[in-house]
Amino acid sequence: MNIGIIGYGGVGKALVRLIKKKKYDFNIKFIIKSDGGIVCKSGINIDSILINEDNLQRHEFWSKGLSLENVIDNDIDYLIELTPTNKDTGEPALSFIKLALKNGISVVTGNKGPVLIDYKGLKRLAEENNAKLGIGCTVGAALPTIEGGAVGCAGADILCIEGILNGTSNFILSEMSEKAVSYEEALHKAQSIGIAETNPYMDVEGYDTAIKMIILTNYFFDSQITLKDVDIVGISNISKEVINRVKDSGGKIKLLGKTYRENNEIKIKVSPEILNVEHSLYSVDRKNKGILFNTDVLGNITIIGGASGVENAAASIVRDITNLK
Amino acid sequence: MNIGIIGYGGVGKALVRLIKKKKYDFNIKFIIKSDGGIVCKSGINIDSILINEDNLQRHEFWSKGLSLENVIDNDIDYLIELTPTNKDTGEPALSFIKLALKNGISVVTGNKGPVLIDYKGLKRLAEENNAKLGIGCTVGAALPTIEGGAVGCAGADILCIEGILNGTSNFILSEMSEKAVSYEEALHKAQSIGIAETNPYMDVEGYDTAIKMIILTNYFFDSQITLKDVDIVGISNISKEVINRVKDSGGKIKLLGKTYRENNEIKIKVSPEILNVEHSLYSVDRKNKGILFNTDVLGNITIIGGASGVENAAASIVRDITNLK
Repeated sequence: MNIGIIGYGGVGKALVRLIKKKKYDFNIKFIIKSDGGIVCKSGINIDSILINEDNLQRHEFWSKGLSLENVIDNDIDYLIELTPTNKDTGEPALSFIKLALKNGISVVTGNKGPVLIDYKGLKRLAEENNAKLGIGCTVGAALPTIEGGAVGCAGADILCIEGILNGTSNFILSEMSEKAVSYEEALHKAQSIGIAETNPYMDVEGYDTAIKMIILTNYFFDSQITLKDVDIVGISNISKEVINRVKDSGGKIKLLGKTYRENNEIKIKVSPEILNVEHSLYSVDRKNKGILFNTDVLGNITIIGGASGVENAAASIVRDITNLK
Repeated sequence: MNIGIIGYGGVGKALVRLIKKKKYDFNIKFIIKSDGGIVCKSGINIDSILINEDNLQRHEFWSKGLSLENVIDNDIDYLIELTPTNKDTGEPALSFIKLALKNGISVVTGNKGPVLIDYKGLKRLAEENNAKLGIGCTVGAALPTIEGGAVGCAGADILCIEGILNGTSNFILSEMSEKAVSYEEALHKAQSIGIAETNPYMDVEGYDTAIKMIILTNYFFDSQITLKDVDIVGISNISKEVINRVKDSGGKIKLLGKTYRENNEIKIKVSPEILNVEHSLYSVDRKNKGILFNTDVLGNITIIGGASGVENAAASIVRDITNLK
């Protein structure tokens, strides 16, 4: 399996380490970063990449200014697209993915931006060029959401979807409930141990959950929902008192994404909801994630877990390739 | 898609009803029962089957003594094998499946017997004849166990598996815990509402769970474990007092199947175990089922649910076909 990688941040580096560790039969022909990259038509020795992991410029094959256009005809089976996410334009990832697909090269991406902006267009482009497109990593990474719905619910109709898909906000809510602390204290804890970002806006205000629900929904319902179509309420206004009251009654507040049908239209909303112990996502605590597919003839199918580090995200990229080939 | 069905009990009938209800593009060319069957080379009108559902002998195409040998060259894509289970010999299902595979016909079965006895042989036969073999229905029916491990964990190594896979014993344990009744009372309740069979031995003594764990384990670990290799303890000796004590400490007793490695050997055991609230199978109550895959690079992936009626089992047959084609 010949691959090329574009984007060499946390997940990209973890992917190369994982290929070495698990001895996957992947031959890396190029790695492109924003300022250049390394390339070798016959494949790059993996140890030579790992040695220069944090300083790819030092690699013997480094070529300043190297871009995807320069290397796309390098006879790869898969382009792994892991560049930074832009939720407004999907760029530059959208153009990278299109370039590969137009050349008949299959793509696996871990990037929510392009899939959010134009999944339908990318899917059509893939079909037109007899290429494959893997997006499993973009929704929950190691948690098999796309796979769970597509394969686990095959033959049935998915009626609605519920998901706890944002580890940061779920951690904060668990912390508030378990330690009886305020939102600010829980957020601070999450930031101090590297779970929440310095600017946690996208996570705690529900946008990350919304984006993941949109990707899932457009995938399963062939809809074209965008961020502005989604009702979003985050968790930053939830008081310690409310959390405690819900806890005393045996419930938990979770930031839930929901896809449902209203007047024959597919809708998505994201908001804090009270889950009781009977709910199959009740046990999804702290950094954990979970998804529930409600189907017509297979009943409810709930999937929980999937670890959330960069190695696990990289493993979900490998899972996509394994399932597509 | 041209199919033939052998075995026309609860799931077989539900399958035909489901094909009608969901308008699946399946053309039924024959249905074989133990004493004969119906056959039509161009396909049988589905309404004509449904009208005679409980009396197939009245169908215009009924042919007494018709057997699989008579119809196997009828140009079908899939044989759906749903005859009664025999856990000791796998017969007659084993011979039916072999006959189809030898003729290059793919098979989907809901029958644990032949898969328990000779999955490896059947898989090899399928490969030799360029045919496919679907066994998803045999472990948990609507709960996507095989799919969850094969697709949801693709690229990772499964290290161990834990499963709550028997609805009857799980219902009894839930009933004992929730209503503080004895094993006998809970069993009686389960029998009175049609959950437990008159002879519940296979379910409550752990054999059904063991068989499902063997099928999963031989599938995922390429092992050849048989029933006599499995340590099995059932639930019939669990007292009300023990259940209550565990409940008071916040736990639940579940009949758990476990696949694990000991001295580099794959082992299976089935026994009642105490699960605490942190365990992702803790919420699997009553007739519900669940499975947990512990993997090396994707973390823990838990799948819960999948409704447990005959329609849901039939839907899992359709899922297998959908995923195989």
